Amino acid sequence: MSERIYRDPVHNIIRLRTDTDEGQLMMRLVDAPEFQRLRRIKQLGLALYTYQGAEHSRFAHSLGVLHLMTRVLNRLGESHRIKEEDRAAACAAALLHDVGHGSFSHVMEKVLGFHHEGWTVRVCLSEETEVGRLLRSFSTELPERVASIIEGKFHPAALAQLVSSQLDVDRMDYLLRDSLMTGAKYGIYDLEWIINALQIDEENDRIYVAARGLYAVEEYLQARYYMFRQVYFHRTLRSAEAVLRSILRRALKLLEEGKEVWCAPGTPFEKVLRREPLTVSEHLEMDDSDVLFHIKQWQRSSDPVLNDLSRRFTGRRLFKAIDLDMPQAERADFLRAAREMVQRAGYEPEYYFIEDHAGDVPYYNYYTAEVAEPKARIYVEDGYARPLIREISEVSEAVRGLKRYQLNRVCFPPEVKESIYNLYHNVAPEQRAVDAAR
Amino acid sequence: MSERIYRDPVHNIIRLRTDTDEGQLMMRLVDAPEFQRLRRIKQLGLALYTYQGAEHSRFAHSLGVLHLMTRVLNRLGESHRIKEEDRAAACAAALLHDVGHGSFSHVMEKVLGFHHEGWTVRVCLSEETEVGRLLRSFSTELPERVASIIEGKFHPAALAQLVSSQLDVDRMDYLLRDSLMTGAKYGIYDLEWIINALQIDEENDRIYVAARGLYAVEEYLQARYYMFRQVYFHRTLRSAEAVLRSILRRALKLLEEGKEVWCAPGTPFEKVLRREPLTVSEHLEMDDSDVLFHIKQWQRSSDPVLNDLSRRFTGRRLFKAIDLDMPQAERADFLRAAREMVQRAGYEPEYYFIEDHAGDVPYYNYYTAEVAEPKARIYVEDGYARPLIREISEVSEAVRGLKRYQLNRVCFPPEVKESIYNLYHNVAPEQRAVDAAR
Amino acid sequence: MSERIYRDPVHNIIRLRTDTDEGQLMMRLVDAPEFQRLRRIKQLGLALYTYQGAEHSRFAHSLGVLHLMTRVLNRLGESHRIKEEDRAAACAAALLHDVGHGSFSHVMEKVLGFHHEGWTVRVCLSEETEVGRLLRSFSTELPERVASIIEGKFHPAALAQLVSSQLDVDRMDYLLRDSLMTGAKYGIYDLEWIINALQIDEENDRIYVAARGLYAVEEYLQARYYMFRQVYFHRTLRSAEAVLRSILRRALKLLEEGKEVWCAPGTPFEKVLRREPLTVSEHLEMDDSDVLFHIKQWQRSSDPVLNDLSRRFTGRRLFKAIDLDMPQAERADFLRAAREMVQRAGYEPEYYFIEDHAGDVPYYNYYTAEVAEPKARIYVEDGYARPLIREISEVSEAVRGLKRYQLNRVCFPPEVKESIYNLYHNVAPEQRAVDAAR
Amino acid sequence: MSERIYRDPVHNIIRLRTDTDEGQLMMRLVDAPEFQRLRRIKQLGLALYTYQGAEHSRFAHSLGVLHLMTRVLNRLGESHRIKEEDRAAACAAALLHDVGHGSFSHVMEKVLGFHHEGWTVRVCLSEETEVGRLLRSFSTELPERVASIIEGKFHPAALAQLVSSQLDVDRMDYLLRDSLMTGAKYGIYDLEWIINALQIDEENDRIYVAARGLYAVEEYLQARYYMFRQVYFHRTLRSAEAVLRSILRRALKLLEEGKEVWCAPGTPFEKVLRREPLTVSEHLEMDDSDVLFHIKQWQRSSDPVLNDLSRRFTGRRLFKAIDLDMPQAERADFLRAAREMVQRAGYEPEYYFIEDHAGDVPYYNYYTAEVAEPKARIYVEDGYARPLIREISEVSEAVRGLKRYQLNRVCFPPEVKESIYNLYHNVAPEQRAVDAAR
Repeated sequence: MSERIYRDPVHNIIRLRTDTDEGQLMMRLVDAPEFQRLRRIKQLGLALYTYQGAEHSRFAHSLGVLHLMTRVLNRLGESHRIKEEDRAAACAAALLHDVGHGSFSHVMEKVLGFHHEGWTVRVCLSEETEVGRLLRSFSTELPERVASIIEGKFHPAALAQLVSSQLDVDRMDYLLRDSLMTGAKYGIYDLEWIINALQIDEENDRIYVAARGLYAVEEYLQARYYMFRQVYFHRTLRSAEAVLRSILRRALKLLEEGKEVWCAPGTPFEKVLRREPLTVSEHLEMDDSDVLFHIKQWQRSSDPVLNDLSRRFTGRRLFKAIDLDMPQAERADFLRAAREMVQRAGYEPEYYFIEDHAGDVPYYNYYTAEVAEPKARIYVEDGYARPLIREISEVSEAVRGLKRYQLNRVCFPPEVKESIYNLYHNVAPEQRAVDAAR
Repeated sequence: MSERIYRDPVHNIIRLRTDTDEGQLMMRLVDAPEFQRLRRIKQLGLALYTYQGAEHSRFAHSLGVLHLMTRVLNRLGESHRIKEEDRAAACAAALLHDVGHGSFSHVMEKVLGFHHEGWTVRVCLSEETEVGRLLRSFSTELPERVASIIEGKFHPAALAQLVSSQLDVDRMDYLLRDSLMTGAKYGIYDLEWIINALQIDEENDRIYVAARGLYAVEEYLQARYYMFRQVYFHRTLRSAEAVLRSILRRALKLLEEGKEVWCAPGTPFEKVLRREPLTVSEHLEMDDSDVLFHIKQWQRSSDPVLNDLSRRFTGRRLFKAIDLDMPQAERADFLRAAREMVQRAGYEPEYYFIEDHAGDVPYYNYYTAEVAEPKARIYVEDGYARPLIREISEVSEAVRGLKRYQLNRVCFPPEVKESIYNLYHNVAPEQRAVDAAR
Repeated sequence: MSERIYRDPVHNIIRLRTDTDEGQLMMRLVDAPEFQRLRRIKQLGLALYTYQGAEHSRFAHSLGVLHLMTRVLNRLGESHRIKEEDRAAACAAALLHDVGHGSFSHVMEKVLGFHHEGWTVRVCLSEETEVGRLLRSFSTELPERVASIIEGKFHPAALAQLVSSQLDVDRMDYLLRDSLMTGAKYGIYDLEWIINALQIDEENDRIYVAARGLYAVEEYLQARYYMFRQVYFHRTLRSAEAVLRSILRRALKLLEEGKEVWCAPGTPFEKVLRREPLTVSEHLEMDDSDVLFHIKQWQRSSDPVLNDLSRRFTGRRLFKAIDLDMPQAERADFLRAAREMVQRAGYEPEYYFIEDHAGDVPYYNYYTAEVAEPKARIYVEDGYARPLIREISEVSEAVRGLKRYQLNRVCFPPEVKESIYNLYHNVAPEQRAVDAAR
Repeated sequence: MSERIYRDPVHNIIRLRTDTDEGQLMMRLVDAPEFQRLRRIKQLGLALYTYQGAEHSRFAHSLGVLHLMTRVLNRLGESHRIKEEDRAAACAAALLHDVGHGSFSHVMEKVLGFHHEGWTVRVCLSEETEVGRLLRSFSTELPERVASIIEGKFHPAALAQLVSSQLDVDRMDYLLRDSLMTGAKYGIYDLEWIINALQIDEENDRIYVAARGLYAVEEYLQARYYMFRQVYFHRTLRSAEAVLRSILRRALKLLEEGKEVWCAPGTPFEKVLRREPLTVSEHLEMDDSDVLFHIKQWQRSSDPVLNDLSRRFTGRRLFKAIDLDMPQAERADFLRAAREMVQRAGYEPEYYFIEDHAGDVPYYNYYTAEVAEPKARIYVEDGYARPLIREISEVSEAVRGLKRYQLNRVCFPPEVKESIYNLYHNVAPEQRAVDAAR
């Protein structure tokens, strides 16, 4: 038996068997330059400004996702027949689910208007990428099959659920990995027990969790809930994203107006800033270093806004943020007054007064039955003697207790913090104003 | 009591007390842009090509080192009087010990001919850095005191040993951190027990370990030994460094010869490549993104060597390596023949046939009494009833058993692997040829 | 500085400083034979029949509780003044809180009609115990002070809360310890974060948790909730307790009726079985070995019930249990019919048909505001800028979501399992019948 | 697929598949009363007097050993064909390897003159035990096959090595388990990596470790070495065993002399004390509770030696110990003088002055090539390209560095500690006298 072994801080040993066709394919996909690029894209973007350890890349995460997919399929394979071609497609989709991701994607995708899943599908279907060639050389249908898993159109749907649903191997890996790396530990749950309890509901073509796994899934969903509140929605992280957004919007604006902004000439990042369309290859040339390198140079820009924001970003002198815990109407009043105050203090509100709503978060997705479409839901077995399979929130009070998290926040320079706080206490004397934790 | 709290994957909670002068200083040093820059410099450089999780920065490490220094001083303070000004200097030195580090420093420093410790001292003494200003505003002597700890000239020497010796807080942190992040786990030892056993030998002004801590220190030294063999000297990591070295040497050579090499104009990295001297501020503008961004662009260079090596580096298509386990004379013969073979295959040996010796490693430093100077040595208490303080290798057979690790290795393109292997087996039929593990 | 060090699977290093009066007292209390006896009493009684690793003693737990008390007091002492005599009393109470515990206390106390807290108080106040003598020799008031903490009458109440409330060091230790030892991992929460967030509300003389600790306390309460459901209320454990209860009740009955039951003559356990009152010293002679040794001998009893039950117990051939998830009236019907069925099968229902209700559990105490008396409640700070201190369930939706757990269960021999199941499905066709997990 | 799941503090989830004949057999063996008895026998006997957490039973350990055997066989089965009957025999032997163990076996076996392996074989071959019946009902040869594995006579020898050699699943489990439970952490090594590297050398019918596993095996052997020094040979543990030995020898002596010693009449333990032979069933009735219960009663013995020693034992008032680090001749002199001193102080040396030599330890077995017989040795692959399989100490300097541990110790009552220490310093002024750590 031959194999390739990776050590991993989360899963310890990750084995790729290289004596099977599937294993050979996975190994070559990992070695493809498009996948290697993921080493240069941080999984959590700017979260390291809050949790300094959160420096891990999408590469390490993606390997972990493949590992979990392999483990889950081995487990399910003990009691269900899974076709080899479906297995290969599911594994490839698990490995490649982030291959089209750009750097700081929450921010970049919003400012620039694209979506990484579209790029992932293009990478898989492309004839100019090594990933595309490898998939096609395995079987002519494989690129389409992988793409259809990523787009959620695959059958058997149960396998697609493992890649993308409320209980998929992507989330299973990132909760543990982000927890370990942030040091926050909010995302720890009983992985082994969940893998042990996963089953296929052949009749309805979906994944479900055996009754003994209910508590572990509750714990998993609570873990996710706290990770959102404490990490993914953390004020410092969101404030850093607000600064980055302002920087990019300012650079785009200046270029639109024909003003000078330093760009490394002839690079794909220059095309991005000039809003020129990119080929797949050009998209795949970029990573975190393009953004960081340019912003460092912009610290010497002659435009005072771009100059100032770039210095704040590079030196981690970010915006302050407050959560607006007040009725809609009052909030509007407060925001109007605060925006004027920022303006009067000499800061252009367009770049220095940034509202942040939960709806902005691209994967607002801690579990609530309303928001998840049926195939993304979690199903559990209820009862031992004559069990039924039911959606988890019908069974679990603990899950019903996880409420939607409404984020109404505003970010502004620390220089105006005191005035904004005073204003807030006048407008909302009964409300709490929450200062950034750090 | 007021404090600032960091979560950390290694130490869990790192507290900075902010209600003391010392605490205030530490907090401001952390917030200084020169320290924030360390977020953009990876602790282990290219080790992520072997252990994909090894993506942590010098920022996270440096915070951990400060944390350990605080813990050790608190512990020693239970039984010894430590002056406040010495405490502050020791803590600042612990935090700042890497502040002058450049990116991929093993490679860059060697190719470009400088040493990061010199930069660290300059950063502390400088009047143009915020770090320098903060130290000076705490006390006029502090910059000098911190610099003297880093240079190993400080008194009391016991405190300087905590920052730089064979058993210092730097090594204590990085063994644990590198172990966790690589997933290799070779560097785990009993930190709590060691901290608990540290003592000051007032008479000789040095640190020693109480008798009960002997086994823990043995374990610590074995941990270090295995980390060197399995991580820091790993063939893939060293091969990646060889490729990077070749890239830089090629770029410098082309520029010396007046040929064109793409550089972002007006950046400090351009000055580096043109071998122009840098100010402290310019040095501190650079980080990993400069190197990575430029090498990405060099993939389109018209120089075939720079072009090819940059593609190998970016796509992790590295050199192969073999360890030459043979007498000196035979090794020389083999190397001559192998170099010719590489040349004949169309690869310039200067860039494609790289010898790698242990002596190259800037911190060849798993513990052996011969190499460590007296003040860097480890001392332990021997015996309970009438104990003496002795150098650890006099007491411990296990430590004496840790032998110098002689690295004689050569790296070359995988395209010539088979011919080189055949040559090796002809020259050294009795010897083992060790292929790269992955 | 001198100290005594214990290694601990949960807390790693437990230090007793022996260079202070308080430290000397703690060390001597640990060495007292009354405290050493706790080595022979398992913390979780019969839980090892479900979780084979749950074999830890009250000794290890009590040391852990002292350790946590020391850590919490050190932390609180950074911002509050705590009198030395209060500190000593709090530490002694933490260490000794279980010193009067008998073996298998849930079962024994109920069958025999006494309560371990009464014994603990007697041990502390007694002049015939070494513990009593040590406390008294420290200060004449100390025995009373320790007793009053254990009885919850102490002032300052904040310190008493640390020993006995919904967020006390007893629970903090046992959740982690029971989690580790069972391997169930349900009881893991963020201890460091909670210790870090504990504060004294001087005005109201109570402990509260700073705002940043809210999530950690929610996690702690959820951990407790799952430990109750998955460990402390586990069917196999409760069924083992039911068998043990039947054994003891049978032995007592036989002795009351003048029949022969083997007892080791002249031992305190014989007095217990003959319902004779015990002195403190006699109570303290007994431990788990008395119960286990006698039941082993009762496997040869001429009484068929005592003989049979003792064999079941020793060989872990326990009762089956079902949870009766049905309205009160139907439950009564079902229980009547099932009891008759058991009787007809030749098993005396008094010993072989055991109802088990949550109310039986002596410390029904996962947190709900209704059940906890004010001084046992958990208080948290709400809001950052102008914070208030409020009871946690007013602040936290997650805590309000933890519902009372109603246990209606019945245990019976596996020999009648099938008939009982059929009966259950006839009576309650819509309900789920939950078989014992193992 | 059906299965039974155990949670375990070391291995997390232990699965018994119950849908195979082998799985059914394992489940029934676990449920057999002879195996359940192991719940009442502590794995480490009196080690809890040093490491209070070391309270785990042979039951938990034995389950862990079965789990490891299953994992190793599954791994080996990927590349080697293993017959089903051999698999079943190896698993049963792994599970049952301790089934004949008595309580406090180091002490009891020596004083009473028997060996637990003999009892284990008898249990497996017996027709009166359930274990014997279950093995026989699986196949008529199985009892003999299991016995021959335990006696080391089985073929294929490779499978027998997994149960009993220097690198067997017994040691693999107990190092990790004892480490976790003691909290000492000396025995932690990289289990996953070792399992991953195990191979069968078909030609020589033995187990070996692939080259990549060398460091992990070195770490495993170092772990074992430290566990012996720090746990299994710990002075307090050995001193507790010395006291227990004296108690038993005294009780036997008194009974031999026709004097009265309290025994629970009609119990197998009484037969043991009267040196009457036991049947298998009688042997299997005894466990730790017999010893503990009797010694508690002996605290009221009219014999002053038995009375005193029993009180010391129960209250953990043990002997002191010193390690005699001196030449053979001086040691003899010292021992003679010290014995007289103890005698003069009124303590019968036979019971109060106990010499303790390493040779006493029944499994003196940290690895050295001289002591291990060939089939118990560890073999590793050396070299990658043309590997050979060699005994590990030929390959590894680190293993050669692990020296035989010579224990020359003497135990005596703390009451004479000072005089003995003075004597020791007079006899051996240059030597260190090592007081008990605690």
